Amino acid sequence: MYRVDLNCDLGESFGAYTMGTDELILPFLTSANIACGFHAGDPHVMFSTVKLAIQNDVAIGAHPGLPDLIGFGRRNIDISAQEAYEMVVYQIGALYGFVKAAGGNMRHVKPHGALYNMAAKRSDLAEAIAEAVYKVNPELILFGLSGSELVTAGEKIGLKTAHEVFADRTYQLDGTLTPRNQPGALITDQEQAVSQVIRMVKEGKVLSLQGRDIPIKADTVCIHGDGSHALAFARLIREILGKSQIDLQAVGFK
Amino acid sequence: MYRVDLNCDLGESFGAYTMGTDELILPFLTSANIACGFHAGDPHVMFSTVKLAIQNDVAIGAHPGLPDLIGFGRRNIDISAQEAYEMVVYQIGALYGFVKAAGGNMRHVKPHGALYNMAAKRSDLAEAIAEAVYKVNPELILFGLSGSELVTAGEKIGLKTAHEVFADRTYQLDGTLTPRNQPGALITDQEQAVSQVIRMVKEGKVLSLQGRDIPIKADTVCIHGDGSHALAFARLIREILGKSQIDLQAVGFK
Amino acid sequence: MYRVDLNCDLGESFGAYTMGTDELILPFLTSANIACGFHAGDPHVMFSTVKLAIQNDVAIGAHPGLPDLIGFGRRNIDISAQEAYEMVVYQIGALYGFVKAAGGNMRHVKPHGALYNMAAKRSDLAEAIAEAVYKVNPELILFGLSGSELVTAGEKIGLKTAHEVFADRTYQLDGTLTPRNQPGALITDQEQAVSQVIRMVKEGKVLSLQGRDIPIKADTVCIHGDGSHALAFARLIREILGKSQIDLQAVGFK
Amino acid sequence: MYRVDLNCDLGESFGAYTMGTDELILPFLTSANIACGFHAGDPHVMFSTVKLAIQNDVAIGAHPGLPDLIGFGRRNIDISAQEAYEMVVYQIGALYGFVKAAGGNMRHVKPHGALYNMAAKRSDLAEAIAEAVYKVNPELILFGLSGSELVTAGEKIGLKTAHEVFADRTYQLDGTLTPRNQPGALITDQEQAVSQVIRMVKEGKVLSLQGRDIPIKADTVCIHGDGSHALAFARLIREILGKSQIDLQAVGFK
Repeated sequence: MYRVDLNCDLGESFGAYTMGTDELILPFLTSANIACGFHAGDPHVMFSTVKLAIQNDVAIGAHPGLPDLIGFGRRNIDISAQEAYEMVVYQIGALYGFVKAAGGNMRHVKPHGALYNMAAKRSDLAEAIAEAVYKVNPELILFGLSGSELVTAGEKIGLKTAHEVFADRTYQLDGTLTPRNQPGALITDQEQAVSQVIRMVKEGKVLSLQGRDIPIKADTVCIHGDGSHALAFARLIREILGKSQIDLQAVGFK
Repeated sequence: MYRVDLNCDLGESFGAYTMGTDELILPFLTSANIACGFHAGDPHVMFSTVKLAIQNDVAIGAHPGLPDLIGFGRRNIDISAQEAYEMVVYQIGALYGFVKAAGGNMRHVKPHGALYNMAAKRSDLAEAIAEAVYKVNPELILFGLSGSELVTAGEKIGLKTAHEVFADRTYQLDGTLTPRNQPGALITDQEQAVSQVIRMVKEGKVLSLQGRDIPIKADTVCIHGDGSHALAFARLIREILGKSQIDLQAVGFK
Repeated sequence: MYRVDLNCDLGESFGAYTMGTDELILPFLTSANIACGFHAGDPHVMFSTVKLAIQNDVAIGAHPGLPDLIGFGRRNIDISAQEAYEMVVYQIGALYGFVKAAGGNMRHVKPHGALYNMAAKRSDLAEAIAEAVYKVNPELILFGLSGSELVTAGEKIGLKTAHEVFADRTYQLDGTLTPRNQPGALITDQEQAVSQVIRMVKEGKVLSLQGRDIPIKADTVCIHGDGSHALAFARLIREILGKSQIDLQAVGFK
Repeated sequence: MYRVDLNCDLGESFGAYTMGTDELILPFLTSANIACGFHAGDPHVMFSTVKLAIQNDVAIGAHPGLPDLIGFGRRNIDISAQEAYEMVVYQIGALYGFVKAAGGNMRHVKPHGALYNMAAKRSDLAEAIAEAVYKVNPELILFGLSGSELVTAGEKIGLKTAHEVFADRTYQLDGTLTPRNQPGALITDQEQAVSQVIRMVKEGKVLSLQGRDIPIKADTVCIHGDGSHALAFARLIREILGKSQIDLQAVGFK
């Protein structure tokens, strides 16, 4: 029997601004990455989302991002490794407060947006983030792009890690994602997207955009929580994975 | 033998901006209230200050404030009890991350500025803050203005509390501080300020501005960390208290 | 022939967050109040909204608010008159940059949310705001709650002013709005709301919640830009006013 | 007779945080670059600094920066040309409000920190910033690193520009500044720093770190406003330039 985790970025509303459909998508997930107030989220949204995750029995993770609300944490900022360390400690801690107040447990950490992408390539940032997670709680599981510097840094310091794959993105020969601004970056056919996931989970392989199979490790799949197709796709992937002898379970549970 | 705690607000620098003389004042303290990034402080400052407090064997507390960096958390904002609860949970959590990463312990929570003052009078805010502290960690000690709604709310929910007094402020007949914009609000003579503390600790009394003694409980004394006189006063109060059979010790230690 | 202005708060999106349906509501308006980045809006949203207003030939106004993005400028902050003056100058200036860059003209200023409400009652804030507007450009028209301290302060300093009324809110005997948390505060029947406006414009009267007519001046009517009923109401009020010999025109045009 | 402008970054305090010695350095300057609230400064500081500059008869310029208060605008953020355009329009406008309210004139614009450095090399950002300045007011003078893309873009669009040089930094063969983290980047001898300026102004040459003269245009010299040596150096450079037949005058004045 195979298994995989379905994660989604949640808690991205802010003040009077609503984003996503957290309540509707939660029943389809096994892990929720909750924004911590730097790129999205605020104390009220964080607390509500933590409580929703607990009600839905979905594993809770911190989703720390760059301090860039206006850019939603998607613009690279030239931060030092120390700054990465400190902003991750701060945000994990902040979410920890709500998890504790709600009587739950924090299970994982997944950096957001530009921080995630920079940490996939820059080993100094990857190591700083891994150390931040480890120092706050060595039981936390570090989520990173499959095969990236971030996952490598997590394993090196002794953390459990989860290699993350994307259903609707194509891959390059070197295992990186095809950049969004290049042709063929996105897989718009939902059944093809699910098939890609099944192959990654069962065979550990994905067909690169260049037409050759490459090896890939798939512990957790990122599902989008926003947009009109998000719910339909979540329903579809759960249904097909269920028929394909793939258990859906949060990372790290026996 | 009597005892009292000497606390000070620290970690109030931000980015390129420096405030206070934390390294110099720390050796004189028994408790440090560390800003958590809402009214002052940032992740780097918080981590540095936590490490300094540990090195100086000074008890660490969170010093949550209103989200008002430009106003240094000193302007009342008309927040709801729920907003108070959530902003306190967030900030305690954020500081907890650094305390954990540095291998220390968090001992107490003291709200800052306008949040402290509003919670002294509004019982709904006081109860929300007390509940926030309790839910994150019921072992934390809640600091509030001596005799205030905040301390009352803390005791009611089952927290250890510390009644805080001020050395350099005068008191009204009802036990509140004389507002800063009224004549006679400040005690500028340092020896008189120390004498007021000694009397509060030993006799549980203070001479009100109106000339009549009132009862007051003094578990912890707030020392200023900024300004040219801060260090001189810290040195003086330690010296005189030491000669007056008053032990200086963080609240809650046996 | 009678005339009135229809204004609406626009440009309230922020970064990745969308609010309102600015493009759809603009054709129904004669004046647009554009958020300036303190309670809502960002440089990109401001520029886009200014360009949209010019395309729709709608008069442009600055909509300065309190520095409280998380609270959408709706929470009172205990600011000084000087702080009010300075935050209004800053925000008018910021919007002026975009109006200039887009080749348009700024016509008016309407404070937002808690700043609007506080300035309706506190004469020190009202005078500070009126002076800020006057000093940046004495040709600007100051919008304030009909009969409020803000309009009075504007007239006193020599500004053109616009008394603002609300279609869907009821009034008290003293001419203030019934607070939202009291019964009968809102008029949910759209035709009744339009009738109230027509009577305010033509007769200078409104029936108070207490059942007695009170005098009221109606230079401009506030229309909501968000929510499912906003567009339908905008269409309805334009249609009925058009049939009632009331010209819709921005304030201050001949 | 030769002439040059002495400029300095001012208005960098924020809320309760003080930075720089604006009042003391202003009498030595001919141009003041005033922070606009993104990387430093706030409405109160901006207004105070504008008034101080007017009192000292020093030319006023906007000093727009990246939205990064915690990093003081010194960290590169991967912004688009459109974002650069919009953030510069916003900040020029905001300062314009205070200049207008104080009865002064805005003379120039100089980007700050990472925005200045990125615009020196990236022509898309340089052109966006030049266009922002031009669209708000084509009479404004654009300050940029001598020989940089920013100055080139300003000249191309039809702005007056000022080539800026540094007294205390060494230059590379290609006319760029030696990066601060390389040996020999700083000139610590104050007289040598002044001599470098005199030669740049009179001969249009500077000795590169590699030992060969390179051509350089020097319209304005950047003076530091902070640190213990700032005032002494300002005094020294005025005195020596005065004896060297170099007039000190703001750029653009006849």
